[in-house]
Amino acid sequence: MAVKSGRSIGVGLIGFGTIGTGVVKVLAQNAAVIEQRLGFPLKMVAIADLDTETDRKVDLEGVRFDSDAEGLIAAPDVDIVIELVGGYEVAKRFILAAIAAGKPVVTANKALLALHGKEIFAAAEAAGVDVAFEAAVGGGIPILRSLREGLSANHIDSVLGILNGTTNYVLTEMERTEEDFEVVLKRAQELGYAEADPTFDVDGIDAAHKLALLTAMAFGAELTYEQIPTEGIRQLMPIDFELARDFGYKIKLLGIAKCRREDDGVECIEARVHPTMVAAGSMLANVDAAMNAIEVRGDAVGPTLYYGAGAGEMPTASAVVADLIEIARELQRGGSGPVAPLSYLPHHLVPKPLVGLEELSGRFYLRFTAADEPGVLGRIAGALGDEGVGIQSVVQQGGADSPGSVPIIVLTHEASEAGLAAALARVDDEREVTAPTVVVRIEEGE
Amino acid sequence: MAVKSGRSIGVGLIGFGTIGTGVVKVLAQNAAVIEQRLGFPLKMVAIADLDTETDRKVDLEGVRFDSDAEGLIAAPDVDIVIELVGGYEVAKRFILAAIAAGKPVVTANKALLALHGKEIFAAAEAAGVDVAFEAAVGGGIPILRSLREGLSANHIDSVLGILNGTTNYVLTEMERTEEDFEVVLKRAQELGYAEADPTFDVDGIDAAHKLALLTAMAFGAELTYEQIPTEGIRQLMPIDFELARDFGYKIKLLGIAKCRREDDGVECIEARVHPTMVAAGSMLANVDAAMNAIEVRGDAVGPTLYYGAGAGEMPTASAVVADLIEIARELQRGGSGPVAPLSYLPHHLVPKPLVGLEELSGRFYLRFTAADEPGVLGRIAGALGDEGVGIQSVVQQGGADSPGSVPIIVLTHEASEAGLAAALARVDDEREVTAPTVVVRIEEGE
Repeated sequence: MAVKSGRSIGVGLIGFGTIGTGVVKVLAQNAAVIEQRLGFPLKMVAIADLDTETDRKVDLEGVRFDSDAEGLIAAPDVDIVIELVGGYEVAKRFILAAIAAGKPVVTANKALLALHGKEIFAAAEAAGVDVAFEAAVGGGIPILRSLREGLSANHIDSVLGILNGTTNYVLTEMERTEEDFEVVLKRAQELGYAEADPTFDVDGIDAAHKLALLTAMAFGAELTYEQIPTEGIRQLMPIDFELARDFGYKIKLLGIAKCRREDDGVECIEARVHPTMVAAGSMLANVDAAMNAIEVRGDAVGPTLYYGAGAGEMPTASAVVADLIEIARELQRGGSGPVAPLSYLPHHLVPKPLVGLEELSGRFYLRFTAADEPGVLGRIAGALGDEGVGIQSVVQQGGADSPGSVPIIVLTHEASEAGLAAALARVDDEREVTAPTVVVRIEEGE
Repeated sequence: MAVKSGRSIGVGLIGFGTIGTGVVKVLAQNAAVIEQRLGFPLKMVAIADLDTETDRKVDLEGVRFDSDAEGLIAAPDVDIVIELVGGYEVAKRFILAAIAAGKPVVTANKALLALHGKEIFAAAEAAGVDVAFEAAVGGGIPILRSLREGLSANHIDSVLGILNGTTNYVLTEMERTEEDFEVVLKRAQELGYAEADPTFDVDGIDAAHKLALLTAMAFGAELTYEQIPTEGIRQLMPIDFELARDFGYKIKLLGIAKCRREDDGVECIEARVHPTMVAAGSMLANVDAAMNAIEVRGDAVGPTLYYGAGAGEMPTASAVVADLIEIARELQRGGSGPVAPLSYLPHHLVPKPLVGLEELSGRFYLRFTAADEPGVLGRIAGALGDEGVGIQSVVQQGGADSPGSVPIIVLTHEASEAGLAAALARVDDEREVTAPTVVVRIEEGE
């Protein structure tokens, strides 16, 4: 699609919720500075949303606003389509319709891209239009651009980080207040940090969506969301934060992806989402409240880290509008962007199955819950020992809160996940063990 | 300059020192992954350096290597020229010659760009070729790309950070070992963290060069290196680190640039380099050893931070090669890059004089050195009070080390720089004051 040089680029927005409102605000309040960088104006010309009644408290003069998304996509003055509907089916239909109309798309929809990215990116490539999604990971943090362009000279060795602001807020508050998960979650919901249905966030699903995109971009692998072992934070208790502190750690929900290049050149990828203990003095440990941070290690650059607001109206709008600016620049040149959306050129994105969790090893924090009876610790220690899981420290606290049951905390030496799983299967079967054992993996800085 | 699609892009390197060697290594070891992202190979075809004798321990098969930089620039198989000579005159001549030959340039030369950037960027614009310099600030951290593209939707409110790895290494070691500056500097020199002549680093000049580039890019201002008040770290003593810790701070050499938009739209820019106390729990406080980190605040995105190795062979080469990849992609498309090198389009880069330091205000840590006589503290406090500098805390330590002289430490409330300067001029004139007063400014997180 050729756009005449000099005229403004028209933007159409589908989905006029919080982030869409932020996009309208950013385009309005920063119109001058955007034009000073871009050379011509970016204009919001049309918005579509089923809810045309709610007052978003933004100036919509000169903007068509109705519920007709198809009409918006077809409109000749809409050069770029923003999809902020969320969800799967409808969003996908709009994106594919825009691509079919030869119009580039900006989206923040990580869930859709993690599951249906292959189809969407293939359609975009075939049509020669851009699909940009900086806002899908890390909110306003320019992490995808950094991975795709800033670190393009590197073999990426690992990408790991705090990818979900809601869970980081809850973990930070649990650590600060020593309150239970449910209490803190309720407050987070009241304050707007967590949704009414918090499942996607607290069960790690949102982080896994984002990690799937990062893994593909970092390692040139096809999207593998379904393969990512994912664990959330519901099982954590105040005692875990207290002991983490004693051991010199903080607990963060991390998405972790690593790539080991073997001598024979085979790449071996691992990816997982779970609560993780990180050294108290590390950069990640200092990422509090709803902030996000992603650490990327490359073979040339070494460790790098990117920090900022991972969600919210204006930070996410910042990323959406950055994508608009880049695409608008390309449209003025009469082409689509030259950088592959997933960093590797599409035909180099190959299926690279993940290494199973059971093939990995690491150090573990384990919280057993067992009847306060003689011999329990011995049986736990025995099961761990039988499976090759060495114990570094044990803390057994007198159990005042749960009569009859006490927490027994074990910090292990480096051990295999397979050995741990076998030991826990045995332990959790014991009569005296009254609740499933809680595992927090330890990620050592290098 | 049009490059035929499909063929490889030839790279010529002028200056075969540490970073140049890193570039050769990165292009060799990551050739496959670079081609998977770029679609065609990037090939080092020629290297020029006055020293053709030293064995750099890299494979130079198929690479011409001599001392003829002009010949390299003119060679038809050299599509992109890398300038890693350093310094001013010669480097500038090579860069302008490459531009005149229609060849894009990649450089890491912050000193040259901070002082002569205006001339170089104007020549590049007139010739329609790119000058890329990601490696000039923050080593391997993709900070310039992030500022220029990732945050392009924002009014930037501030850019501040640890821009020099040598001084951060020295400060980290002084804090850790409680040794004197000279002792730590000597060790840093032995370990290769500091140069034989450390002036550029320890006096803040290198940080000021980088801050000049960041300030121009963040605020659309013409380069103003000469206007940046710059102070280094030589005057710091172990007691400063000890008291900083007591007060809840760490001492970092920061480059700080801020932009306040007034109600009438006038932008008011401040920029300065000096030792700074930052809250011990902040992200910047945790940046240790030779690492760099830059915090950028935008009106939409809020605070963001970028962390990584700010110098060194491979991290800096990572940034140089990222620039090569971007430029090569544009050459294949038959054009030069569409993004303005200093973020704002050249005709929007306007002179924006800096606000003088004396017009600013803040909180200060002051270390007076005075004879251990009655009445000294009273005269110091009096001078501060007369100039409107309110005292928050005072620490007077018995002076064992310097007989007759004792350090008197004052932490002030918010006060004007002008008032402080007037008070210090009076105090340092007092007979009992035996050394110039040391000032460390306090940067509060927001």
